[in-house]
Amino acid sequence: MKTLDVTLPGGRYPIHIGAGLLDEVLPRLVGPLARELVVVVTNETLQRLYPDRIEQALRALPVRVDTIALPDGEQYKTLETLARVYDRLMAQQANRRTLIIAFGGGVVGDMAGFAAATFMRGVPLVQVPTTLLAQVDSSVGGKTAVNHRLGKNAIGAFKQPDGVVMELELLATLPDRELRAGLFELIKHGIIRDPELFTFLEGHRDRFGTHDWGFWEEAVWRSCRVKAAVVEADERETDLRAILNFGHSLGHLIETHTGYAQYLHGEAVGVGMLFAAHASWVWGELPEADSQRIRALLQPLVTPVRMPVLDAREFAGLLMHDKKAAEGVLRFIGLRGIGQAHIHERTAPADLWPLFRGFLEEMPGVLRLQEDAAVAG
Amino acid sequence: MKTLDVTLPGGRYPIHIGAGLLDEVLPRLVGPLARELVVVVTNETLQRLYPDRIEQALRALPVRVDTIALPDGEQYKTLETLARVYDRLMAQQANRRTLIIAFGGGVVGDMAGFAAATFMRGVPLVQVPTTLLAQVDSSVGGKTAVNHRLGKNAIGAFKQPDGVVMELELLATLPDRELRAGLFELIKHGIIRDPELFTFLEGHRDRFGTHDWGFWEEAVWRSCRVKAAVVEADERETDLRAILNFGHSLGHLIETHTGYAQYLHGEAVGVGMLFAAHASWVWGELPEADSQRIRALLQPLVTPVRMPVLDAREFAGLLMHDKKAAEGVLRFIGLRGIGQAHIHERTAPADLWPLFRGFLEEMPGVLRLQEDAAVAG
Repeated sequence: MKTLDVTLPGGRYPIHIGAGLLDEVLPRLVGPLARELVVVVTNETLQRLYPDRIEQALRALPVRVDTIALPDGEQYKTLETLARVYDRLMAQQANRRTLIIAFGGGVVGDMAGFAAATFMRGVPLVQVPTTLLAQVDSSVGGKTAVNHRLGKNAIGAFKQPDGVVMELELLATLPDRELRAGLFELIKHGIIRDPELFTFLEGHRDRFGTHDWGFWEEAVWRSCRVKAAVVEADERETDLRAILNFGHSLGHLIETHTGYAQYLHGEAVGVGMLFAAHASWVWGELPEADSQRIRALLQPLVTPVRMPVLDAREFAGLLMHDKKAAEGVLRFIGLRGIGQAHIHERTAPADLWPLFRGFLEEMPGVLRLQEDAAVAG
Repeated sequence: MKTLDVTLPGGRYPIHIGAGLLDEVLPRLVGPLARELVVVVTNETLQRLYPDRIEQALRALPVRVDTIALPDGEQYKTLETLARVYDRLMAQQANRRTLIIAFGGGVVGDMAGFAAATFMRGVPLVQVPTTLLAQVDSSVGGKTAVNHRLGKNAIGAFKQPDGVVMELELLATLPDRELRAGLFELIKHGIIRDPELFTFLEGHRDRFGTHDWGFWEEAVWRSCRVKAAVVEADERETDLRAILNFGHSLGHLIETHTGYAQYLHGEAVGVGMLFAAHASWVWGELPEADSQRIRALLQPLVTPVRMPVLDAREFAGLLMHDKKAAEGVLRFIGLRGIGQAHIHERTAPADLWPLFRGFLEEMPGVLRLQEDAAVAG
């Protein structure tokens, strides 16, 4: 097991990473935090795969444990589903000391986290992320949210947990596609901030599809360390934290333009990272050698993306629909080298359009615009 | 005009108090905060009394101003009404720089404030409280919330505004009953923390029902100063801030036991303050002279309360249903003198029951338990 201590203005909490942590490490963490009642927020898939797993882990503690299993999927990350969590908390007579445990991926983490941020104006929270993406991304940083039908993560809050337990053995039941999608965020952390992590991943690419928990412990720990360091330096997203959005400009565009249903977030960001590296190389700020290493690691992992044809105006419109956009320009995250992301504060979508056209020509196997591209509603 | 600067860990903001502030002071405050879009959250009653008043005040600013008028009343302070605010924000293409202005009483302030705390994980907020209660209580301190059908203010967040404009002339259209209800919270601030404010109010009780803005400016300013000082000393309600709950134990019980529909919050708290002062006097911690001054000021203002009969067990149950209660005891705010509130950390409801019986006998005109007391659902 590896432990990472995250220190923020609002407090300090540990992230425990390893295999076989649920029955010993989790109750040790939860014990001092829990009073009468613990409410586990999970989803129906996990409840089927690991029925009452958290209750079992906490059975020796003198607390009542209640579990609410939400429907599984991003489409349920809504105010309506959140209302069900509040209803359950009230029905269980939860109070300010009730501990919420998020046992699931990013969707569960976001909803349980937002509930913990807002129920009685804030109750304690422990995260047990069950996907690679949630482990390296959404469970570090304190961002919680639900979607509005007109905007992803439109309603949310910052909520730091009281502790995180990353049980790697849970990755054994994660579909291969989701494991690979999570890998992109992990690689991203190497690209933006940690050349050693990048080199470690280059040297261990044969382990990417395996259940070698030793490899994952090292990779997840290093990746979380990057995210935690960035968040520590900038708890509120004003400045440094923006570099975590590396690959997200085009990533979000892909997700929006394909209706959020066809590609996983990580897959879209994978393509977006290739594009951002391409743009930095064209601008002459990313050395050729680094550009090639990034492409060599990412391209074999990328899921080829097909999108409906779009013109320069639509491209700009889709880029600006991002909530980070303001006044006709956006923040684009570029690279000066592996581990050296930086912020282009005022990038005009029109300046990205020729780069995007060039990217399509240069890497036709990665992203293709087609008249007949099937797009989910 | 008087201005009070509130300094909190999260920042600093001004409270402007006076008559005739909307057309000059408000745009001066809003100008630097507003970008493209300002969304005014108000209620239907105010929209009828002061149609598009805030748009008018801001007409010289280069911003688009949109107004959403919510139905008026505590029963609409729900997640469902809040969803309408989010819908409107999204429909107006609001973003992180959109300024929300709360133009209304406590209900509007709570909902607009919670929306501002959570839309895009936080947007700027200006409060223009239109009731005396909202001016002296809910617009200072950063507490925002909506009700759950099983619990008042069960879902909320802390959100400090970027500025507050207390336009006293708006009190001219406030129903007398609401003006008097707000007065109790104002008096409360004198009782718990500011003997000068108490003395000032004693000396000006002939102005209570008037539109003498000079009197109200002084009274509201002094009252806000107390609340701000308490909140500054304790932004999160852990310790000192609890003294603001003076009168609230019995006040909440009255509200809950009469279905929240019969008495205004201030009216219930008015009776609760008389009870708390009575308890402190019985315990021997509040000197006789102070007890008499408090009773002399409060009793003529109190709205007599009729509640259904309740026994000791029901009394305890109702007191403990409070979210501040934990482990069978509650925090009861007592007095050592005018201006000297303090916290009884672990008060058992059973110890308050005989005091409550004594209070009923001592002040039968204030509170009466009756078999046939009409109670709204």
